[in-house]
Amino acid sequence: MSHAPTDILDRRLQTVRSGMAEQALDALVVTSLANVLYLTNFEGSSAIAVVTAERVLFITDFRYLTTMSDIQGSAHGCPGLEVITVDASYDETLAATLATISSRRVGFEAAHVSVSRHSWLQTKIGGSDRAPELVSTVGIVERARVRKDRYELEILREAADRLSAVAGGLFTAIRCGMSERELAMTIDWRIREAGFERPAFETIVASGPQAALPHARPSGRTLTEGDLVVLDFGGVYDSYCVDLTRTVSIGSASRRARDVHAAVLDAQAKAIAAVRPGASRYEIDAAARASLTRAGMGEAFGHGTGHGLGIEVHEDPRIVRRHADADASDEAIAPAMVFTIEPGAYFPGWGGVRIEDDVVVTEDGAELLTHVTTDLLEL
Amino acid sequence: MSHAPTDILDRRLQTVRSGMAEQALDALVVTSLANVLYLTNFEGSSAIAVVTAERVLFITDFRYLTTMSDIQGSAHGCPGLEVITVDASYDETLAATLATISSRRVGFEAAHVSVSRHSWLQTKIGGSDRAPELVSTVGIVERARVRKDRYELEILREAADRLSAVAGGLFTAIRCGMSERELAMTIDWRIREAGFERPAFETIVASGPQAALPHARPSGRTLTEGDLVVLDFGGVYDSYCVDLTRTVSIGSASRRARDVHAAVLDAQAKAIAAVRPGASRYEIDAAARASLTRAGMGEAFGHGTGHGLGIEVHEDPRIVRRHADADASDEAIAPAMVFTIEPGAYFPGWGGVRIEDDVVVTEDGAELLTHVTTDLLEL
Repeated sequence: MSHAPTDILDRRLQTVRSGMAEQALDALVVTSLANVLYLTNFEGSSAIAVVTAERVLFITDFRYLTTMSDIQGSAHGCPGLEVITVDASYDETLAATLATISSRRVGFEAAHVSVSRHSWLQTKIGGSDRAPELVSTVGIVERARVRKDRYELEILREAADRLSAVAGGLFTAIRCGMSERELAMTIDWRIREAGFERPAFETIVASGPQAALPHARPSGRTLTEGDLVVLDFGGVYDSYCVDLTRTVSIGSASRRARDVHAAVLDAQAKAIAAVRPGASRYEIDAAARASLTRAGMGEAFGHGTGHGLGIEVHEDPRIVRRHADADASDEAIAPAMVFTIEPGAYFPGWGGVRIEDDVVVTEDGAELLTHVTTDLLEL
Repeated sequence: MSHAPTDILDRRLQTVRSGMAEQALDALVVTSLANVLYLTNFEGSSAIAVVTAERVLFITDFRYLTTMSDIQGSAHGCPGLEVITVDASYDETLAATLATISSRRVGFEAAHVSVSRHSWLQTKIGGSDRAPELVSTVGIVERARVRKDRYELEILREAADRLSAVAGGLFTAIRCGMSERELAMTIDWRIREAGFERPAFETIVASGPQAALPHARPSGRTLTEGDLVVLDFGGVYDSYCVDLTRTVSIGSASRRARDVHAAVLDAQAKAIAAVRPGASRYEIDAAARASLTRAGMGEAFGHGTGHGLGIEVHEDPRIVRRHADADASDEAIAPAMVFTIEPGAYFPGWGGVRIEDDVVVTEDGAELLTHVTTDLLEL
């Protein structure tokens, strides 16, 4: 398991503290575990980090004390971090911690704190004249995370190499007569064998008509001559997620299968060609969609073109249609963003095709991180 | 994949509607996916259910339309369910849906809606005189879920049988010299082979000193003569979670290992003996804790005694110390609750022991759902 070195953590904290300063916050309560990991190297399942101008008050429970003190004693320690052990509950300890620091304006992550948790905290710390004000914030840490640093890019490159190797090895392991579930188990096994901590999500093996469901779960259906099979899988490597999809044919592909595959592949190429610093997320999505529309398959592409990759398997930037974007912050694409490009075409009762690669934005375009043939293989 | 029959869903909805009536709600917006599944049999990753006195307005996107219409056309359809397809975003569609029903008081799940989502919705639907009031609710569906119905008990029994068989089969597969990671991969493979959809959480294999960390992740460390090894794993079967832990010795167990194991086993027996309708959750935890304290190991048991099992792997009831309970609703134990009993003792630098079984509360006590030897096996 690798961890970000101290100087990288320091830079990340600086970025977050600039975001805090923009809203005149004395402290930021970080409750999203992905954000906590990004700032502190903590990989467990429970912790809260309170970032102030100088300190990182790190609240966790006894289960993680040993691991955290090992990290802090290494070259990967988080600058200014002080561990506070939970006694009764996390939120009780958080409230007590906030009482010890003399912050006036305390930000919390509005997208990661539930209404009931917020109202409990508000009641607990509110009341007195000296009580800090809880300020709703959105995406302060996420905005830092969207452009990857050199530590992250190195991991994502290595992870994508390994995932590509898993994909390449799979093609010789797929046999007519295997069940979807059997193939999914094989994929999961190989993902771990390749050094991943775990699959990044539930592996999709969708064959024949099942392939028309973009999120089908592997079933007992056996792969049959003439099937198209969508294989969509990912892995978590040193806490970072990569994601890849290929669609293969069992035996010879029909004319229609070849046409749909070619159309999706063209849509993917057009989307990748649209990636460059300064482009909008919507432009990239529109490039894929326009290509499929020209092929008469615009209606068959019902989902977004891609999603950011990092500590989470779905993070910013979201490469989607403008009107499908609840968020609607049109942040431009910038160097060192990493995301998937995964158009698809789905026809109920017949099947579907999806092709997905991971790209990193360079100074003048995109570089593919995953690399395995996109030909329509007939296995 | 099995689904709850219509009459069971009907009963669940009745219970939820009684909970709504207590708070004079005309509608309840169910956003927790576990709660959505419980009420509608929907197993996908995105949906919102709006329950009214007569209807279930079910919001999902195009990916799930086929699956939902298949379920609705079967003997497992949800009574009164009407599918509404998301066009732009889920919350836009939710707001539009709420505008079409003439509800005055609309409950939302305060523990499952973030502050930012709530404030968006509030702004979107508020304003006019006829705008519905958004009412914060906690645990309306969860309170129904805590006591399992016959459909759920049947699945949980079957799942626990299968998980016990996986555990029994493992003992002959464990070899000195295997790595923790290799053993964890074997366990995950066997969980799927036994018919589970997936592991219920990241499998724990913690050997030697690693076993002192209750939530250790499998590492490259090889199992070594004299190690105690904590094996904690679970599976999801027909959407329901079961969970089991055994601690084994590689080669002969030391005197100390035998003592710690015997103390934990006694704590588990005392906790199981304390389970009966009307008991408080805290009493059960205290029974395990008192037993370990008598053995001089009270300090070594730093976590709770157990947690509920069902659609989620950690749900109510929480079998914990009173003062560790942020929730602090002292709901009494009742028949048909299902939870784990899993005391442990952990000694930094040395190792640890945990023993976990799943129980269902009967009319006068507890019945074990998992059943595999609790002897300290020397492998």
